[in-house]
Parts: sequence; structure tokens; C-alpha cells
Amino acid sequence: MSGLMKALVYGGPGIRSWKSVPIPKLLRPTDAIVKLTSTTICGTDLHISAGDVPACKPGTILGHEGIGIIDSIGSDVKNFQKGDKVIISCITNCNSCFYCKNNLQSHCLDGGWILGYKIDGTQAEYVRIPHANSSLYKVPKSASDESLLMLSDILPTSYEIGVLSGKIKQGDSVAIVGAGPVGLSCLLTVSNFKPSKVIMIDLDDNRLAASRRFGATHAVNPKRVSSVKDEIEKITSDITAKRTNGVIPQDDLSGVDVAIECVGVPAAFDTCQEIIAPGGRIANVGVHGKKVDLRLQDLWIKNIGITTGLVSAFSTEELLSRILKGEIDSSKLVTHRFKMSEMEKAYEVFSNASSNGAIKTFIKADDA
Amino acid sequence: MSGLMKALVYGGPGIRSWKSVPIPKLLRPTDAIVKLTSTTICGTDLHISAGDVPACKPGTILGHEGIGIIDSIGSDVKNFQKGDKVIISCITNCNSCFYCKNNLQSHCLDGGWILGYKIDGTQAEYVRIPHANSSLYKVPKSASDESLLMLSDILPTSYEIGVLSGKIKQGDSVAIVGAGPVGLSCLLTVSNFKPSKVIMIDLDDNRLAASRRFGATHAVNPKRVSSVKDEIEKITSDITAKRTNGVIPQDDLSGVDVAIECVGVPAAFDTCQEIIAPGGRIANVGVHGKKVDLRLQDLWIKNIGITTGLVSAFSTEELLSRILKGEIDSSKLVTHRFKMSEMEKAYEVFSNASSNGAIKTFIKADDA
Repeated sequence: MSGLMKALVYGGPGIRSWKSVPIPKLLRPTDAIVKLTSTTICGTDLHISAGDVPACKPGTILGHEGIGIIDSIGSDVKNFQKGDKVIISCITNCNSCFYCKNNLQSHCLDGGWILGYKIDGTQAEYVRIPHANSSLYKVPKSASDESLLMLSDILPTSYEIGVLSGKIKQGDSVAIVGAGPVGLSCLLTVSNFKPSKVIMIDLDDNRLAASRRFGATHAVNPKRVSSVKDEIEKITSDITAKRTNGVIPQDDLSGVDVAIECVGVPAAFDTCQEIIAPGGRIANVGVHGKKVDLRLQDLWIKNIGITTGLVSAFSTEELLSRILKGEIDSSKLVTHRFKMSEMEKAYEVFSNASSNGAIKTFIKADDA
Repeated sequence: MSGLMKALVYGGPGIRSWKSVPIPKLLRPTDAIVKLTSTTICGTDLHISAGDVPACKPGTILGHEGIGIIDSIGSDVKNFQKGDKVIISCITNCNSCFYCKNNLQSHCLDGGWILGYKIDGTQAEYVRIPHANSSLYKVPKSASDESLLMLSDILPTSYEIGVLSGKIKQGDSVAIVGAGPVGLSCLLTVSNFKPSKVIMIDLDDNRLAASRRFGATHAVNPKRVSSVKDEIEKITSDITAKRTNGVIPQDDLSGVDVAIECVGVPAAFDTCQEIIAPGGRIANVGVHGKKVDLRLQDLWIKNIGITTGLVSAFSTEELLSRILKGEIDSSKLVTHRFKMSEMEKAYEVFSNASSNGAIKTFIKADDA
């Protein structure tokens, strides 16, 4: 190797370029260098390149998702060897601090979400992964990159912060607000909890159609109904009727047991508040840029829970096993394919995801 | 008996009177009639008598707390007999509907909070209790009413909606916002979870002094510090230092593990948001009349939980056992004593609780 590689480098607000930079070197004994075979683009990468995330400094290589082959390892890396095929987790975890020990790897003292943000990321031919022992996951060479790539971020994010935080019980009704990549990933991973209804809510009919193909039992477009709350009440009326057993309740007991917010705007969070049943859980997955109105005057009496969070990726092994068994097919999320050298074109397509019908891009190394 | 008794009757906004009304009769086989030996006043009673709760109709006898002796029972009441001493729970529960079976007795289809609200209550010589088998708790005759009375509402409310919802782990730091009766009851019941710090936050120095006597490790008056957040950061700095183990974290990891809102106003909820540590829980006990601003732009990444609720009273037996063992002394909450015939005077004192230094009143039947 020449000592140089191609990578997508953030150059300041609105500027990014696919250019030659030095191949990363091992800096600590716990590091590994991974040669990427595939990567993808996340909505967060768009925010960073637009300049919305000032903590990311110009010169940083973008990207926090990828599959690759171990190229070299530091002397303390015992779980992997050169040539292993691995998933790169978006969360770097030291596996020894207080936060890692409490399944809050997202707040790891020497990690968390740093790739493509505070350190160089995965939209490159090579990437340095700190704490490789616990931040990479070995996968069979026979498994395809397309089936594994979503394990870097979007599947564990949707599963941990949406599905698991929602504490879904068998027979529950679940509403997913937002049928983008995160909402669809909630849909893909929710099945093991056996909800009786999974209702997708989105303003885009094409996304709703996709959600029906992904297994949503119902799809609601707020633009096409007079009241989302009434619509949800109608859809869940058989569950409510079974619970109330003929009694006309004095209070409003209608609504969903779990509402998962996958957009990150006040209106989507508000929909969740409006449709949540007493005893229900609102799991916020969306990344929010401003405050929302919390209707505590209605909710104080309803015995509900609200959760927020950044993924900790403790569920990666579990999700990997479900993928390898064929229970989850997350390759369905891939709508557009590119070579790594077409990175800038991939960004263009993903930046206009709505008009392009893009969900996730699959970006393959030119030599893979 | 003459067929008449004295009771405090709601007469419409701003009107209440201690007057003669018929003694209640058994209406259903699951009813019991209880002769009150003591009762008390809750902040909610003040709201109802002010006319803030339109669902409460004029003519209703107020009150949802009390200790008494079983006077008569319906044919289906198997757990009690005439002469038994009982705690009257503020929550009536049928013990058979979906909600009761899921520990959401607050939303019981034939009960919930109805006493002194939708049906006649306990500020009277006698009260009719529906679903007596599961809505009353037998207590030893030797236990004093003063030690038991808080089990009707305020202790289970504070314990279930504050302490249990906060999922406190040993060594956690806990902040209680609001040192009124509910906040102090959280303080009384939190001990079994062995938090390392319990920080009381209130604007009233007298209440803060009381909270120190009740076991708070720290007391913070927002009027006397430049920043509550900084003060909490200082108080919990030893815990944070232990967790970060010398590492200077990139993110703000300071704050309390659990914040319990016991006021019911936006400023108190806001304090909770401001001081919560990543991974923490905000348990809202306060009754809110308006929306609050939820700072989702800061909280989405912090992996926090927020809970709300009306008490279900499933913890009454557990708390009773702790009281009988001497682990909790809730009689400390009683600051003012009255006879039942002095009911209107008791209301007057409790309506001006702050200037009177009142926490809870103990109102004893004239013949008890």
C-alpha cells in the first residue's frame, strides 16, 4: 500500500470531499485497523456536513457505519486477528468504565459515538477502531455485507431506543411515528415481542406503502384522516373492547400501548402524546433540535413512561444472531447501491431521499 | 343511630359545609360501610372545593383518606367482618378487570379514584366503600390511627409514583423537588433502596429544615444559590468522580440519578430536567394544570426516562408492614390535630398550610 487512501473528508459547513489522505495507523495497543468492504450514509452525516454539529472539526473523515476486514491489530487486541470479517459498531466502548458496565456504552468515558464525529470515520478505505475488542463484532465470511451493514447503527438504534425502551408485551398495540429508515428498522426488529398491531404513521404515502411490505398491520397518513387520535382509537377498538369487557369506562382508555417517535420534530412527538393509552410508553428515537410541549396536564394521571437515548449497541450480538437465522432481513432497507468512489453521488441521492425514494444506500469498496 | 350523620359536603365552587346527611347504606353485595375514626385533608380536596374539578358534582361528600371500623358488610365481602379496623385506600379496585390485574388499579373500570370525587367520601362519620374486599386493608386494633392514616393516599402515592417509578438503585443520588407532604413522604419511604444522597429542593426554608429532620442528606433553596444545577453538580461530585475515575469526560455526566417532581408546576419539572444525569429517571408525582417545556434537544441523547401517574395503591400492604415494624414513622407528617366537628377550621388551617407550617392534619372522630 502506498500510505494513502481515499476518504470523505468534512471541510467545514457545506463542504465535503472525496480525497487522498494518509491511511490510519495503530495508535494504541487496543486499536485495530479495518479495511472497509462497505459503508453507508446516515442522516447524522448530512447534519454534520451541513455544519449543524460544531463539535465535528473540519478535516474529520465522516461515517460511523461499516463492514470490513481486519488489516492489523494492536498488541492488546485478543478477540480478532488479521483477515477477520467484522461489523464496525457506531458506538466505541471500552468495556470497563462505569457507563459501559451499566449498558450505557453511549456514554463510555473513552468512546461512545466518536467515529466520524470526534475521530475519523468509516467513509474511507481504512479506519482505525479504538477498543477493538469490544467495538467490533466478528461475522461469518459467508454472510453478505448487505445483510450485515445495518447492524452498525440503525438496527441497534431502532431496537434498543425504540423497541426495547418501549417494553412491548405480547398482544400490545404499537404505533411507529415516522416511516423512514429508523421507523422501518423498528418494524423489522419488533416481531419477537409479538405485538398484535403495528401501526405506521407518516405523511408520505410511498413510505407507508413500504412499511406495509415490511410488515406494518396498519398505515395512517395524517393528511388523509380528520384526526389521527380517532383513527388510532378505531384501529385499536377491538383491544380496548376486550380490556373493558363491555364496561363503558369513565375515562378515555383508548390509544396504543407503545408509541415510538422516529422523526425528531415536535409534531411527531405530539402525535405520540395524543395517541398513548393509560399505562403506555413513548419511546423517543428521533434526534431533536428544539424543545417540545409536554402535555403534563393530561399525562400526569395516565401512568405513562417516556424514554430517550442514544444507542449503546449492547444488542448487536442478539440482532446479528437473528439476521444469521433469517429472522430479520435488513438488506430490504437498501434502495440504492454505489461504489465507494461514487461517494459524492451517493450523498447527493441520499440528501434528496424523499424525492429519490431512498431509504438506505449500500456503498461498496471499489475492490470488494 | 338516627339515620343521619355529619359530613363535609361540596356545595359548588367555593362552597362546602359540615352538615347532617343520611348515613350511607350498602348498595351492592361487595360494599362495606365504615365508621370513620379519623380522616385528613389532601391538596386535591382544596382544588375540588375551589371548583377546579368540574367532574365532582355539588352534593358530594369530600375526602378520600381515612381509618375506621367496619360497621356492616355486603354478602360478598369475605375478607372483613363488623368491628375490624381498616385503612380506606383512596383507590377503589375491583381486583378483576384488565387494569387491576396489571397493577393499574388507578384506571380500574369500576373504581380508581372515585371517593370524595365521583362518589361520597371520607370526611364524614360513615362512608360506603365499593369493592371492599380489595379496597380496604385490615390493621391491628393496637396500631394508632396517626401512624396509619397516611397509608390511605400520600404514602403509596409518593412511594409508587415517586420512589418505585424512579427505579432507585443502591448508592444512587436522588433529588426531591418540593418539600411538601408528598416530597416528605418520598423521603420517608425511599430508605429501603439505600440511596447515597437524598437532596431536597424547595423555596421554603422551614420546609427544608423539616426535610433535614426527615432524613434528607442535603437541602437546596433555589433562592439562595446562583445555580441549582451547579449546586447539584457540587453535591454529587464525589459520585461523578468515582464513576469517571479520573477521566475528564467529553460530555456533561453530572447530575442526579433520580429526580422526583412533587410540586406540579413547570418550574419544578424544569429543575428536574436541568439536574438529571445521563441514564437518569425523572419521576413526576405532581399534579399539573398546564403543559411544560420538555427539553428534548438536550435530553434525546441522555438516555433518560420520565414517568407519570396516579397511585394504584398496590404497595399499601408493603408500606403497612414497614410502618408496623417501625421502619417508617409517617405520624411525623401530622402537624395539626382537630376533631371532626372542627372540620371547617381544619380546612382553614390547611388552606393556608404555608403560613401555618402545616404538613398534614389529623382529624379524629369526636367519639373516637
